[in-house]
Amino acid sequence: MIQNDALQAFFDRKSVRSFLDKAVPQEIKELIIDAGIAAPSAGNQQLYTIIVLEEQALKEKLALLCDNQPFIATAPFVLVLLADCRRWLDCYHYAGLDPRRPGLGDMLLACEDAVIAAQNMVMAAHFLGLGSCYIGDILENQEEVAALLHLDSWVVPATMLVFGYPTQQAAERNKPKRPPREYLVRKNYYSALSEPELRRLFNDLSPGRDFNQYMTAFCKRKYLSDFAQEMNRSVLCFSAPFTKDQERTE
Amino acid sequence: MIQNDALQAFFDRKSVRSFLDKAVPQEIKELIIDAGIAAPSAGNQQLYTIIVLEEQALKEKLALLCDNQPFIATAPFVLVLLADCRRWLDCYHYAGLDPRRPGLGDMLLACEDAVIAAQNMVMAAHFLGLGSCYIGDILENQEEVAALLHLDSWVVPATMLVFGYPTQQAAERNKPKRPPREYLVRKNYYSALSEPELRRLFNDLSPGRDFNQYMTAFCKRKYLSDFAQEMNRSVLCFSAPFTKDQERTE
Repeated sequence: MIQNDALQAFFDRKSVRSFLDKAVPQEIKELIIDAGIAAPSAGNQQLYTIIVLEEQALKEKLALLCDNQPFIATAPFVLVLLADCRRWLDCYHYAGLDPRRPGLGDMLLACEDAVIAAQNMVMAAHFLGLGSCYIGDILENQEEVAALLHLDSWVVPATMLVFGYPTQQAAERNKPKRPPREYLVRKNYYSALSEPELRRLFNDLSPGRDFNQYMTAFCKRKYLSDFAQEMNRSVLCFSAPFTKDQERTE
Repeated sequence: MIQNDALQAFFDRKSVRSFLDKAVPQEIKELIIDAGIAAPSAGNQQLYTIIVLEEQALKEKLALLCDNQPFIATAPFVLVLLADCRRWLDCYHYAGLDPRRPGLGDMLLACEDAVIAAQNMVMAAHFLGLGSCYIGDILENQEEVAALLHLDSWVVPATMLVFGYPTQQAAERNKPKRPPREYLVRKNYYSALSEPELRRLFNDLSPGRDFNQYMTAFCKRKYLSDFAQEMNRSVLCFSAPFTKDQERTE
């Protein structure tokens, strides 16, 4: 069914969090970034800026701010992708215009633009033999992250990526199972999965485990965790400037 | 410098908005969707639901709601990617828990999850000879879109994708130029581009054109357009349920 090797790569690629102590050559870094920049982008506007973290001290501070995950600081190539609603705004100002403030839709679209580029980078890295991992925790602690990276009100974290050559163990790790397609796809209209469907999905993914027990532990570890609640606070905080004009007019 | 054909594909792929009248085989559709589901996902949670639009009347209504772009209704394969903050919440409820409401961070993370899967689908389609285009306008007109697709408060549009076999003209169209890397990449810290840098970037991309004139027209056509302002209103609107609990505690 799968028709070529390139396609197989989408199914093979898995997150890597354990890297060899081996530098990534500059031309490989540039190729990965360029593959990201080649990605589709709303109105071809590239509503993002890419920060390459080259200072070890910065990586270590971000590893702490991102739910204390030390492996982040061990990655030889680390990027923070920023949703950038400022570059075009500045162009308009320099052209003598005085347009509206960016809105929440602009922010969301810019975050999506950044993440579309990110996924191209992740797959390009895979084709080059590099492992990678998304760090969604860059959405947390926005005050510290903004101060550390010198962010602007109109430039907010979208995601972070770490790259490197995988250790043998990381390369051999099984990719976590995905839900079968029928649970994630609906025809024409959205409808929620019923309780029996959700329990069946759970059984497909985790045969023999107890649904209630697993969900209770998972909910505590993920959804009710300090980092998830911090993420919600932080995102609300950096979103605030994007909602102001609109609030005023309502 | 580019080391293999697969990598070249990231640089070759461009948006396609004009499709042959040729159906996409079911197994190709499923392969594209599965490549999306294989994408990285926050905590392997797949925080999205994929709607396959099979009714022509629905495609036509969405083409109107998405800034009236008739080509959407001509695409043989159309997906709406929904950020789904409900599936796990339902699991927690069915396990007897009563956790917090989803927050704005949960919503943003789910939108990013959906878009990461989308970009895998776009590239998988490219490897299978299909063209595609993102329809960011699905963020607009949330009341009508939600009613049409039977959405839930916790399930919001993230993006839409149209796929099909490109017409010769679409296949031969030049890919729009991207900004050179140095304008989009910063070392360690964010800094805005200066006015001379932005004017130089513009000259690199559009040699011989007048910056002020171009920006004035572009700003009017994009940033100040009705659809951009509608997008901001609409996103603010579907984000509102995600901000309630947090507002209450402040």
